Amino acid sequence: MEAYLDNAATTRCCGRAQKIVQKTMDLAYGNPSSLHTKGVEAEKYVKDAASAIAKTLKVSDREIYFTSGGTESNNFALIGAAMANRRAGNRLVTTQVEHASVLNTMAYLEGQGFEVLYLPVDRDGVVCLDALRDAVDAQTILVSIMQVNNEIGSIEPVAQAASIVHEKNPKALFHTDAVQAYGKMQIRPKKEGIDLLSASGHKIHGPKGVGFLYVKEKTKLNPIIFGGGQQHGLRSGTQNVPGIAGLGEAALEAYENLEAKTARLYALKEYFCREAGKLDGVFINGKTGRGGAAHIVSLSFRGIRSEVLLHALEADGIYVSAGSACSSNHRRVSPTLRAIRMEEDLRESVLRFSFSTDTKQDEITYTIEKLAEILPGLRRYARR
Amino acid sequence: MEAYLDNAATTRCCGRAQKIVQKTMDLAYGNPSSLHTKGVEAEKYVKDAASAIAKTLKVSDREIYFTSGGTESNNFALIGAAMANRRAGNRLVTTQVEHASVLNTMAYLEGQGFEVLYLPVDRDGVVCLDALRDAVDAQTILVSIMQVNNEIGSIEPVAQAASIVHEKNPKALFHTDAVQAYGKMQIRPKKEGIDLLSASGHKIHGPKGVGFLYVKEKTKLNPIIFGGGQQHGLRSGTQNVPGIAGLGEAALEAYENLEAKTARLYALKEYFCREAGKLDGVFINGKTGRGGAAHIVSLSFRGIRSEVLLHALEADGIYVSAGSACSSNHRRVSPTLRAIRMEEDLRESVLRFSFSTDTKQDEITYTIEKLAEILPGLRRYARR
Repeated sequence: MEAYLDNAATTRCCGRAQKIVQKTMDLAYGNPSSLHTKGVEAEKYVKDAASAIAKTLKVSDREIYFTSGGTESNNFALIGAAMANRRAGNRLVTTQVEHASVLNTMAYLEGQGFEVLYLPVDRDGVVCLDALRDAVDAQTILVSIMQVNNEIGSIEPVAQAASIVHEKNPKALFHTDAVQAYGKMQIRPKKEGIDLLSASGHKIHGPKGVGFLYVKEKTKLNPIIFGGGQQHGLRSGTQNVPGIAGLGEAALEAYENLEAKTARLYALKEYFCREAGKLDGVFINGKTGRGGAAHIVSLSFRGIRSEVLLHALEADGIYVSAGSACSSNHRRVSPTLRAIRMEEDLRESVLRFSFSTDTKQDEITYTIEKLAEILPGLRRYARR
Repeated sequence: MEAYLDNAATTRCCGRAQKIVQKTMDLAYGNPSSLHTKGVEAEKYVKDAASAIAKTLKVSDREIYFTSGGTESNNFALIGAAMANRRAGNRLVTTQVEHASVLNTMAYLEGQGFEVLYLPVDRDGVVCLDALRDAVDAQTILVSIMQVNNEIGSIEPVAQAASIVHEKNPKALFHTDAVQAYGKMQIRPKKEGIDLLSASGHKIHGPKGVGFLYVKEKTKLNPIIFGGGQQHGLRSGTQNVPGIAGLGEAALEAYENLEAKTARLYALKEYFCREAGKLDGVFINGKTGRGGAAHIVSLSFRGIRSEVLLHALEADGIYVSAGSACSSNHRRVSPTLRAIRMEEDLRESVLRFSFSTDTKQDEITYTIEKLAEILPGLRRYARR
């Protein structure tokens, strides 16, 4: 038996997305910039995808910009907004628990002379709104707070945060990294005060190598990739038509019957947390139940190094992540786990189990069974 | 009958590339950064593609960095090299006939305080090496000269240019935009003195949304996209495994029997140029024969606006480009056509016919027939 519980790292491309990727690769192979029918045909797939995605967010088609993925979307939002609004101020605000594609882009911007404030979070990974209120001043041009944390699944109070930001400084832009949230919950940028929103294809059963950035109309943003002027001059380069079409299909599918799918995932999560919590020396990180995302569970296993358990589970066909895993292979201390003030020995013992609409109850049951089998043995071994 | 003669804008994805894209999307869906088997499996496709591409260039696997396409590769090379070597000097050198993804990136770098020199070309679009010799000084950190011009197919003397650059300033880096050359001619970066080389998937019957940058070992280069530290920290973001695998297959196929394929394309080109040259008021831009690339023919049609002829041909199922077409829809004066000092009225009358290994003799014959039919009528119309 196999249990793929690493869906926050990447998901399997759904049938609909695969089908349209195949079709466009084979038949709609034109360059969307070409003036002839082959170009127009290809462009139609891009427009349809933009329209499909725009509908899921209740925004306009023209506000969707396609990128090569979540990482580029985050870079585009942060560098693009910082550079375009440089004259209005010098301060950027984010949290201590962002994905590396936000934290490392912020570090780059510090090198470019911006002041970056990193807001603290509580023990569940939720950003401190009082700290946000204090941080946003007249010099603040951009605030970036993720929607769902990729390591422990905490849901950030994005709408409240955006409202605080806009109240304290109406000129400041609000960006959210929604890579772990888009396709998994309803997001209404216009209602929630979001100016920029990043999402990725392969986290929602779409293709790899494609993502998008929602850019609210009239937002001052610079491109970070220069060239032929595609996508209103904001993101040059021939559009990845098959990838974009696949992302459009995946987005449509993700938002069909979202409530029912989410309820099923929360039930799986609840079962998993309850059963895992019964095991000796197992701790749940972050909020349980609806306080956290439905698809991410972070567990600590006292006395067991995460990589050891990861490989033991792998031997039984169970695939999970050590820490975030959405980054390069080399081990680093996770800023998120440090920010939630997890004890140091527990930090080394964290595994992330992440679900998707593909995940079946029997995968969860099987994983619990195997954990119960494996853990005592690993502990005996660790004690020697 | 259909004749797709816009292969310099984009090519149809070949069967082998399509097949591996499909397979990896469906089965090897892991995240290459994941520590478990699913990650390792996916990573293997990335490694195999890097190795396949490296072999075609006779470079090392570790020198291949995957990007989202030619435009990103050019941005990465230019911005990455300029920023990393800023302390060594301030001068960048390129030509007047580069693709928009080089010219507009250079314009961005001018805004960042760099001095950029744009070398003139002769009437065939070939860069003036004496001007290059004069331009490269002790302050020069980077020279970028394309391998094949995308509009008129001129082949630039890259090896000679690189040798002049390295002789005049051993510290200066040499970049070539090989988007229209890779897969179509033998390129030996090590022998030719190329430090950085850009290529794109969809120009060589690979997938859209993927390309690579060859980065010579020990080249000082900054990333332009920050995040999880994938690809030795130089290009963050989850690798586009299906796209990369597809690019690898396309590269392998492109270099199989290259000489025979190139000879066939030159024969097609020669036939096309000879027959087109017989038509009234038709002029060939750039070098004919082996002096230019095998797959690009630029023609001027005196007295006819290119878009009018483009759409007339389209009505007969013939797909070509007006000017470069590899950029956004809005019309702009082509820097290349201006640089080769083409008469202004002819500049408005340029069409690009571009071939690929898919192109058949009967497509060419059909196109010539249709041109002979269409041109007199359009001219009568234009005179009114």
